[in-house]
Amino acid sequence: MQPTPDSLWADVLAVRQQQPLVHNITNFVVMNYNANALLALGAAPVMAHAREEVVDMAGIAQALVLNIGTLEPRWIESMRLALQKARERGIPVVLDPVGAGATPYRNQAVAELLEAGNPTVLRGNASEILSVAGVAAATRGVDSSAASDDAVRAARELASRLDAVVCVSGATDHVLAPDGRHARLSNGHVWMTRVTGVGCSASALIGAFSAVQPDAFHATTAAMAYLGVVGEVAAEQVQAAGRGVGQLQIALLDGLQLLDAATFLARLRLQTGN
Amino acid sequence: MQPTPDSLWADVLAVRQQQPLVHNITNFVVMNYNANALLALGAAPVMAHAREEVVDMAGIAQALVLNIGTLEPRWIESMRLALQKARERGIPVVLDPVGAGATPYRNQAVAELLEAGNPTVLRGNASEILSVAGVAAATRGVDSSAASDDAVRAARELASRLDAVVCVSGATDHVLAPDGRHARLSNGHVWMTRVTGVGCSASALIGAFSAVQPDAFHATTAAMAYLGVVGEVAAEQVQAAGRGVGQLQIALLDGLQLLDAATFLARLRLQTGN
Amino acid sequence: MQPTPDSLWADVLAVRQQQPLVHNITNFVVMNYNANALLALGAAPVMAHAREEVVDMAGIAQALVLNIGTLEPRWIESMRLALQKARERGIPVVLDPVGAGATPYRNQAVAELLEAGNPTVLRGNASEILSVAGVAAATRGVDSSAASDDAVRAARELASRLDAVVCVSGATDHVLAPDGRHARLSNGHVWMTRVTGVGCSASALIGAFSAVQPDAFHATTAAMAYLGVVGEVAAEQVQAAGRGVGQLQIALLDGLQLLDAATFLARLRLQTGN
Repeated sequence: MQPTPDSLWADVLAVRQQQPLVHNITNFVVMNYNANALLALGAAPVMAHAREEVVDMAGIAQALVLNIGTLEPRWIESMRLALQKARERGIPVVLDPVGAGATPYRNQAVAELLEAGNPTVLRGNASEILSVAGVAAATRGVDSSAASDDAVRAARELASRLDAVVCVSGATDHVLAPDGRHARLSNGHVWMTRVTGVGCSASALIGAFSAVQPDAFHATTAAMAYLGVVGEVAAEQVQAAGRGVGQLQIALLDGLQLLDAATFLARLRLQTGN
Repeated sequence: MQPTPDSLWADVLAVRQQQPLVHNITNFVVMNYNANALLALGAAPVMAHAREEVVDMAGIAQALVLNIGTLEPRWIESMRLALQKARERGIPVVLDPVGAGATPYRNQAVAELLEAGNPTVLRGNASEILSVAGVAAATRGVDSSAASDDAVRAARELASRLDAVVCVSGATDHVLAPDGRHARLSNGHVWMTRVTGVGCSASALIGAFSAVQPDAFHATTAAMAYLGVVGEVAAEQVQAAGRGVGQLQIALLDGLQLLDAATFLARLRLQTGN
Repeated sequence: MQPTPDSLWADVLAVRQQQPLVHNITNFVVMNYNANALLALGAAPVMAHAREEVVDMAGIAQALVLNIGTLEPRWIESMRLALQKARERGIPVVLDPVGAGATPYRNQAVAELLEAGNPTVLRGNASEILSVAGVAAATRGVDSSAASDDAVRAARELASRLDAVVCVSGATDHVLAPDGRHARLSNGHVWMTRVTGVGCSASALIGAFSAVQPDAFHATTAAMAYLGVVGEVAAEQVQAAGRGVGQLQIALLDGLQLLDAATFLARLRLQTGN
């Protein structure tokens, strides 16, 4: 089914009510912020990365989120183990290939993870998605509007090849399903790129939404729609108060907790198609 | 002696004046927030976890705080070494068994740490304390009001068995001493559970209070009382301003720095007994 | 050349315009805050520490920042590799010897790093700089006003010996160049010492300024001047609003983004000489 504003909001309510346990193996920079984002949303985060316990933790979680932002070899091994357990149990897996294309090591890490099992959802910015798709190598210096179009094509092919939902985030967020569905979301605010971990939080939120909504395309669209509206409203409030990106970091968490249906439905800019 | 509101406030003043150096070996998620909580309180935090230096750092600190939130084998080894050094020097050790009961690895880690030496104070939520006590295995899905009563019984026995103060935090915080003293604190606010690291900060604050107050039961009660009142006032202010749990995270730090005696004494809900 | 208020402000504008990529190998406590500080300033932070990728990351960055706050042996190895690559490419390297003097391990780590190559800028507080200079051993308990004078002498000698800019931060920040130039900055606010990671952020900002200003003495002075004025204004606003050090943490980020030339020029307290 194609998402509608009302069906997306229903996912928000489902997360708030079901409080899914989301297991994150994520980077050091955003661990705190992503945990707070999940808590603000109403989900239950757990961060655990040791080889000795990731299989057990993935065994009790409702979703798994893998983020390669500050990699080490042992972490990749843990991610592989957790990914396999999650696939075995049928819980959704979100992969965030942070910085893919920036170094050969990141590319190799992504390749190893994809070899261990396909994610349910892959989310990155244009250059990361292009890199995972093998289209471009350089993560810095890619012209972003050109990259956005290129990335949609690459994302569509990746979605099909990996049998996974692929989300390219940017000024417009694109969500591509393996069955050809395509959602475009045009909320958000440029200041969101000046708070570290907002992209990573998007991936964490997708984990929470996927835990309560079995249609991963719908869940991913809901997460991106919610974060986009929250961020847009927060940035406007922060600017109106003469504050900056420090305050935005906090206002985003407030909004994740408090955004109401009326504001969400009035603000949402969603286009769906194939 | 039994704590009184005035004697608890005296501990707050002692921390502010003496600025104890608190050595934390804690998890990645809360390192920043706990350091800021200790600084706001007036203590001096240091975070160090390498096997190569933990003994030296524990050798100059006034208290040691161990937190197993994002474990790895090397970290457990460092915690054991620091714990032994702290016991040898007679400085207080606080153990926070984050997620005990969630995975076998966490249970084993707690067992290894307890084998290396008893902590001065053990602080956790009901299911963590039950797990350490060997009463229940599942950290998720335990009914919390039932668990609270069970946990008090288990905590009392643990306090005796470990010759340590045991604190069960929740809607009511219970502090149990090996000599049978029992303090109940009923401040706080449910939103405090939606900011990551508040429980871990409680453990860090207990470290700071224990550094200046040799009666660990009194120190633990003071730390929990202070945080409870700070959190309650902060949450009310945040809600009155139409803000959410993002802002609460910041308001908690403000309150740790600025709470005054009048507010503390007027708000405190303390029951003591045996 | 000696820095002037106008030439320092020009560096601020250059960072905002050029958005230099700053590679940080830093400690767990401040990773998030330093990334946000760099983003607020207008720079592009990347955090990466694995031996497998630090050389590649240092190979695309415009500056490298090394911070030993939460050391481990593998991290020191990565820092050495990245430092060598940065020296080879001629990009600036900032070294922050956090806690030097507190444990033998930290001293040894600093020695190993200096053996791998001199930094472009070394920044620490008085006791850290004294420790690196071999003047004093104890990082805690040094009387700070006495230390400040001693540290300037030691810093001057270190600057010459390492052929590096040395910055001693404190109530007055001192910046010493190998050619004998000396800048004194008297902005800032004592509350800045009660937010974890502000010193580390200073080092990260120096990285960003050094990336756009080839005179490392000028760049370091610009970074410290900017942070000092931002912090002073932020602390005054926070106090006027009855808030505390939690809010200061956020207001500092806002200020890093939004401080304007008029405020900077009106507030700056700079003395230059030899």
